[in-house]
Amino acid sequence: KSVKNEKDSHAISLGNSSTFSVGTKFQLDDVIEAQQFDREILSAIFEVAREMEKIEKSSSGANILRGYLMATLFYEPSTRTRLSFESAMKRLGGEVLTTENAREFSSAAKGETLEDSIRTVEGYSDIIVMRHFESGAARRAASTASIPVINAGDGPGQHPTQALLDVYTIEREIGRLDGIRVGLVGDLANGRTVRSLAYLLAKYNDVKIYFVAPDIVKMKDDIKDYLSSKGVEWEESADLMEVASKCDVVYQTRIQRERFGERIDLYEEARGKYIVDKKVMGVLQKHAVILHPLPRLDEITVDVDGDPRAAYFRQAKNGLYIRMALLKLLLLGW
Amino acid sequence: KSVKNEKDSHAISLGNSSTFSVGTKFQLDDVIEAQQFDREILSAIFEVAREMEKIEKSSSGANILRGYLMATLFYEPSTRTRLSFESAMKRLGGEVLTTENAREFSSAAKGETLEDSIRTVEGYSDIIVMRHFESGAARRAASTASIPVINAGDGPGQHPTQALLDVYTIEREIGRLDGIRVGLVGDLANGRTVRSLAYLLAKYNDVKIYFVAPDIVKMKDDIKDYLSSKGVEWEESADLMEVASKCDVVYQTRIQRERFGERIDLYEEARGKYIVDKKVMGVLQKHAVILHPLPRLDEITVDVDGDPRAAYFRQAKNGLYIRMALLKLLLLGW
Amino acid sequence: KSVKNEKDSHAISLGNSSTFSVGTKFQLDDVIEAQQFDREILSAIFEVAREMEKIEKSSSGANILRGYLMATLFYEPSTRTRLSFESAMKRLGGEVLTTENAREFSSAAKGETLEDSIRTVEGYSDIIVMRHFESGAARRAASTASIPVINAGDGPGQHPTQALLDVYTIEREIGRLDGIRVGLVGDLANGRTVRSLAYLLAKYNDVKIYFVAPDIVKMKDDIKDYLSSKGVEWEESADLMEVASKCDVVYQTRIQRERFGERIDLYEEARGKYIVDKKVMGVLQKHAVILHPLPRLDEITVDVDGDPRAAYFRQAKNGLYIRMALLKLLLLGW
Repeated sequence: KSVKNEKDSHAISLGNSSTFSVGTKFQLDDVIEAQQFDREILSAIFEVAREMEKIEKSSSGANILRGYLMATLFYEPSTRTRLSFESAMKRLGGEVLTTENAREFSSAAKGETLEDSIRTVEGYSDIIVMRHFESGAARRAASTASIPVINAGDGPGQHPTQALLDVYTIEREIGRLDGIRVGLVGDLANGRTVRSLAYLLAKYNDVKIYFVAPDIVKMKDDIKDYLSSKGVEWEESADLMEVASKCDVVYQTRIQRERFGERIDLYEEARGKYIVDKKVMGVLQKHAVILHPLPRLDEITVDVDGDPRAAYFRQAKNGLYIRMALLKLLLLGW
Repeated sequence: KSVKNEKDSHAISLGNSSTFSVGTKFQLDDVIEAQQFDREILSAIFEVAREMEKIEKSSSGANILRGYLMATLFYEPSTRTRLSFESAMKRLGGEVLTTENAREFSSAAKGETLEDSIRTVEGYSDIIVMRHFESGAARRAASTASIPVINAGDGPGQHPTQALLDVYTIEREIGRLDGIRVGLVGDLANGRTVRSLAYLLAKYNDVKIYFVAPDIVKMKDDIKDYLSSKGVEWEESADLMEVASKCDVVYQTRIQRERFGERIDLYEEARGKYIVDKKVMGVLQKHAVILHPLPRLDEITVDVDGDPRAAYFRQAKNGLYIRMALLKLLLLGW
Repeated sequence: KSVKNEKDSHAISLGNSSTFSVGTKFQLDDVIEAQQFDREILSAIFEVAREMEKIEKSSSGANILRGYLMATLFYEPSTRTRLSFESAMKRLGGEVLTTENAREFSSAAKGETLEDSIRTVEGYSDIIVMRHFESGAARRAASTASIPVINAGDGPGQHPTQALLDVYTIEREIGRLDGIRVGLVGDLANGRTVRSLAYLLAKYNDVKIYFVAPDIVKMKDDIKDYLSSKGVEWEESADLMEVASKCDVVYQTRIQRERFGERIDLYEEARGKYIVDKKVMGVLQKHAVILHPLPRLDEITVDVDGDPRAAYFRQAKNGLYIRMALLKLLLLGW
């Protein structure tokens, strides 16, 4: 895989650092998992994302991806994620081939492998954004394709662009990542976003993480052990008010009903336990923010939305800038 | 909400009137219901629609919406309406994010509110065209969004661009709106198009309306009372031949089977009662036209299609021009 | 139907032949069936397809269809075919209106005819690519539409662009069509691709065709009689190894489970009978190739994919060039 059109990448000027100078190839061929990103590359990507905010705001739009074609290959629908990627591509002047019906490739009567589908689609496009219901599918696609693949979520596996936009949002809102205090709230056992976020925060210095979860969906030991091994301080708490009063970021998540099967009673109990409402906002520091990966049910009450510290819709918007940046970097380089 | 890019709107020159001079902001932020339009603004919109006919016919296409992104957010499929809006946007050089799968936002497991979905989608686009299954949904979306919203039908509620294209078609075909005689035929109880059309026609002078409907789907009293209060003459008739011989416009509609539930017998009776066929065309005046909002079943026989007075496919095409005009006006102003 | 914009067609320079000189109208108004193409026109189309390979490889893309709008009207999903056509249009700078939901036009409650749907869609676009579940639907659409229609498969009927890309691939891979030996393998009774291919090969000189099929899905007499009447030599064989050793092209196809209904036993027997594997590759001549219309199950083993003579993914890619060529020719002429 190579940068197709090096000269075009000068369209955006970046601060010159030795490793990420303008026009050089992006270090990654594909974006498959959060583990691919270290602190230095995250910082450079975030700088590109900031440039993308300026491009999106200019009324004329941009042309830097004119002539490039992105295929959104969704094996399960995810309208929010798909529209975000497609908007990113179109805001940069690129074009899109779209399907939320990719499962049709491998319908019972046909039975094509993922690898064969990828070999076909790579002939029609310059980059593939794939959503799949099976963990590991994105990695298989990337090792087959000769064009870049971005993982837009593979079942219980990874959703790396969500993790990146979360960290980007914290930096945009708080102004730094070193030394921050983050409360992770809600379903910490099943939510892949909080797990990826904890993983990425471990790359920064003096971070402190608070876990606030109903007993039945507590953060699992693998992440706790990982944080400890990296010297990240963490503690569990049952007191959302106290955590909220101490943190720079409260990251709320949805309790996922589909994880509880028949046990509606357990779901209802877990769901009502930690709600971000006016009372929580009352103890939150002035500079702190509330984040949420969306969609939200009632774990953040609607009367919080008007508070300037409610940053979750800005966070969703940041997904656009991060995806614009990744498309630019994978297709044109730095 | 504001006109994003005022200088671009000079691309189309309009006759200068004091209220609608070139480059000034469009009076409406959103298009939600037929009641938003008065006679003066309709006339000015129709002038823009005429310009759009010229743009669509030029082989090069237009660029006036280059860099703008329209999201078609359809909570139920309506391929005809969606393609019409998407064609309008693309004929003007704009781009489209499309979903007929918007219901997935609020799937059982997730349960996001319409307001939250709108707040996400407005971050990815410049204008939202929404189809919804619930009356009032478009108004809720418009009051949430900071970008323009066009109602492309909200359940039993409104479908204002259909009403506009109907009136535009009458003016294009007959040459005037004052003094016309219009026969509304078919399902007048449930058809939202005939109700909106009657409403808009009341804005013109010396209009006479004939209602021709099977007993079970007669025009309701609210519209009759409204017409009377506005001084519009109307009468009910059971004689399609006589009405057809007197009218400038015969507006035929489909009897909707889905309204009859188990009573197939009543449906079949209503359905066969008033058919526009060669015999009706035989008494129709030379300058008069047949309209129909489509889709059609057999309430207009196929052998009528070749008659130059069969205007229903021209009417469908006019939908393109009206939607081009509204997209231009909402995004660029007059 | 006429060439909309003759001057643009000069953008691509072709070898000047008297019948296909640059800028003149394409001989066909629509592409409905393989029978429309003779040897001379195939050769000229293939020359345009070769030019398309160059256009697709240039990083800047092409603009020759800028301002043109293609509607992909799919009455059943076929993601592979749809993406191929949409990529072709976008690689040439054109735009796309897309629906895999065209069946919604004629949903039970509505019941619109195909002809009425076509009359609506032709008002929104410049060319229609249609996939339908009923044989003959493409012809009906073409005789209704005043814009070009391309048949992208109509049920058990035709899929002419597949037939063209198959012949194009043989010429590209082998260097000639006269005098070639082709083995058609697998489901020869139901596969429309092998039937169309046999039909088109009959237009070339000294072709020899071998049929290798399980008894239950043997090639039917109509094609055999046709080949004989055209002086094409053919024979049936049960020995894939011997055929493979003699042929320039082995065209493998999938045994379609859906044709066997309840008789899974017969399906399993037919399915395992003729497999292209390493052993077959061992006897295949050095210059020969394996083709397959895709999707593939296990009738070609995966360990064959790395062999340079495995040409089926190049064949899929050729579909892009053929479709680019047809879109260019139908919209702009030679």
